[in-house]
Amino acid sequence: MKIESVDFFYLAMPEIKDIGDGSQDALLVRVRAGDDEGWGECEASPLVTMAAWNCSMSHSACKPVSTSVLGQPFNDPTDITRVHQLVREQSLDLLQTDHLLSGIDIALWDLMGKKSDAAVYQLLGYDRPYPKLPYASQLFGDTPQQTLEKAMTVRAKHYRAAKFGWGPYGRGTVEQDRDHVYAAREGLGKDGILLIDAGTVWQDDVNAAEQRLEALKDCRVTWLEEPFISAALGAYQQLSLKSGAVKLAGGEGCHQAHQAFNMMDYAGLGYIQIDTGRVGGISSAFQVAQHASNQNVTYVNHTFTSYLALSASLQPYAGLESHKICEYPVEATALAREITSNTIVPDQNGMINLPERPGLGMSINPETIKRYQQKVSIQVNNHTIFQSSER
Amino acid sequence: MKIESVDFFYLAMPEIKDIGDGSQDALLVRVRAGDDEGWGECEASPLVTMAAWNCSMSHSACKPVSTSVLGQPFNDPTDITRVHQLVREQSLDLLQTDHLLSGIDIALWDLMGKKSDAAVYQLLGYDRPYPKLPYASQLFGDTPQQTLEKAMTVRAKHYRAAKFGWGPYGRGTVEQDRDHVYAAREGLGKDGILLIDAGTVWQDDVNAAEQRLEALKDCRVTWLEEPFISAALGAYQQLSLKSGAVKLAGGEGCHQAHQAFNMMDYAGLGYIQIDTGRVGGISSAFQVAQHASNQNVTYVNHTFTSYLALSASLQPYAGLESHKICEYPVEATALAREITSNTIVPDQNGMINLPERPGLGMSINPETIKRYQQKVSIQVNNHTIFQSSER
Repeated sequence: MKIESVDFFYLAMPEIKDIGDGSQDALLVRVRAGDDEGWGECEASPLVTMAAWNCSMSHSACKPVSTSVLGQPFNDPTDITRVHQLVREQSLDLLQTDHLLSGIDIALWDLMGKKSDAAVYQLLGYDRPYPKLPYASQLFGDTPQQTLEKAMTVRAKHYRAAKFGWGPYGRGTVEQDRDHVYAAREGLGKDGILLIDAGTVWQDDVNAAEQRLEALKDCRVTWLEEPFISAALGAYQQLSLKSGAVKLAGGEGCHQAHQAFNMMDYAGLGYIQIDTGRVGGISSAFQVAQHASNQNVTYVNHTFTSYLALSASLQPYAGLESHKICEYPVEATALAREITSNTIVPDQNGMINLPERPGLGMSINPETIKRYQQKVSIQVNNHTIFQSSER
Repeated sequence: MKIESVDFFYLAMPEIKDIGDGSQDALLVRVRAGDDEGWGECEASPLVTMAAWNCSMSHSACKPVSTSVLGQPFNDPTDITRVHQLVREQSLDLLQTDHLLSGIDIALWDLMGKKSDAAVYQLLGYDRPYPKLPYASQLFGDTPQQTLEKAMTVRAKHYRAAKFGWGPYGRGTVEQDRDHVYAAREGLGKDGILLIDAGTVWQDDVNAAEQRLEALKDCRVTWLEEPFISAALGAYQQLSLKSGAVKLAGGEGCHQAHQAFNMMDYAGLGYIQIDTGRVGGISSAFQVAQHASNQNVTYVNHTFTSYLALSASLQPYAGLESHKICEYPVEATALAREITSNTIVPDQNGMINLPERPGLGMSINPETIKRYQQKVSIQVNNHTIFQSSER
């Protein structure tokens, strides 16, 4: 059997707001082989990612990604590994590749699961999936009062953990940031697990981050996420020596497994957060999860979009019992919520379980694609080299 | 004064060969403010990079790069720093950004130099540029005999240093690789500085690289370049403990200064190689050069393309006297050689000197653009969001 076709669907909300909500658009990938199809999602700029599929070759290590995927044999999971590696080698110098590969790799695992009548976590070698404790992932309010209300709402919905991020945090004074963190703790109640996400706002400024630690410690925050950009290993490491019970979390920007290894090996992280739609798909995320397990760092998914992306992000660490927490989007747009016709919601114990179905276990909703699709066409010298797929 | 326009020119040879020659196409960037213009070059897949200029916003940290550049005040070098930082923040999650920013940043420095009647190295704070010793950078031959002949040719042209890379190296047996290295040493003569470039062929396989060390040591190779991908810090570090007099070199894949800092701080490198057209332009390359100077690692440019790229890649370390060696492309295509109407060639002492002219000191050849330009057009929902500039 061979990989016969790969198609891309760029979906977008009618209005894209200038806020940290990554669920406002989506790039879906459909892979077909034989009678089956698999689906994946890139957490990436859709247009730019599509352009990497069939651009012209620049040289032997800067080829369009299609070169390494179309027509490749596809019979067992080692074929995914081989295709993945081929893409990395032949498109080494095409930077956007890793985001594109992520969606393709996810779709290939979904397809392989359907062909083998096995869930992806089983193909990865896990005996069983363990339920994960979801944290409600949302943006800070514009004011502490709004943050308080958001936290109270989350608590009323019986979430035991919540994360607040982006928005004003880190952009105002230390006092303003403190007020937001206190408001979040108050709204969540004294027992809730509270997580704070700085969204790389301090770049690599250890001092700026350090000034926020007192409030985080006072409010018993479990982790401070992304005080710095992913590559600022030294800054993370310095801050980790001062953060005490507040552990550092990061890694969503990693687009290769090795970058995540580096954050675990050198940056003093307590939690490594991986977006399967950016790191290189399930293949790379699984490597990171294994490394985390060995290094005593807790693996957590990064997911702010669809149930398809959520399933793909949970499979790589589904079988790691002690890595208990998972990010769970509660503010996703209609588009993101409706990409699949089935959902993944907390069970009666408030836990998240993977679907007991082959592959990723999610069913794509063709109506959603029709409603939100953005049609892309790219010409070079008046020759069309890329055109959006029709359903 | 404001940044009024940014235009892109995608040039390509009529035939692109499946070899490791990055000079077969080019993406030029022209920036205009007032009566002046500056030029830069991205070392990147041209089409994908262009797509990142004016794609739709995905969210607040995934915006098209144009948002952060067009209309920005442009009066002194701090404006370049500000624009650079704004791009990094607002396009954080658009992976291709760093390659696009590189060309824009270079063009902005060129423009600022022209406006201030100063060379870029002067704007960076260097009193004077020091001549650099060029190494002739080329691909291995397909056979040891071809490698021998290439090395003899380079020697006949009076180069005192040469690098051989890519091609068959690392893809065959240890013995075949050894024969190529011996052939290169024989052709170059016993006194020439010999450098070997493995082009990331072993990914992160320390054992595979280690098997090649004996031949490299026997042939007194100065550095082994890119045995592994840039992010494989641990693999580099392990190999560095065994490589003895053969130092490790790497870094051309870095697309942020921090990634290069990490390679210097954790990977045991002797040489850090930076492509100004990938790392984020002159601003980022200069940061890396300062870090290298502080960390006792030798900075070297990575340049395999045009004289414009060569000037841009030398400016960031022009004033570091003890960082003596520079990469010098000797096999570039006609396209790359003819992008500028002036050239940078070895002086009577065989050394490379920067032009004593404002900015980057290079003059773009409009005929070359006309001859090799590839016209790109991108539509979303039948609305044109990007169109190649006419001259």
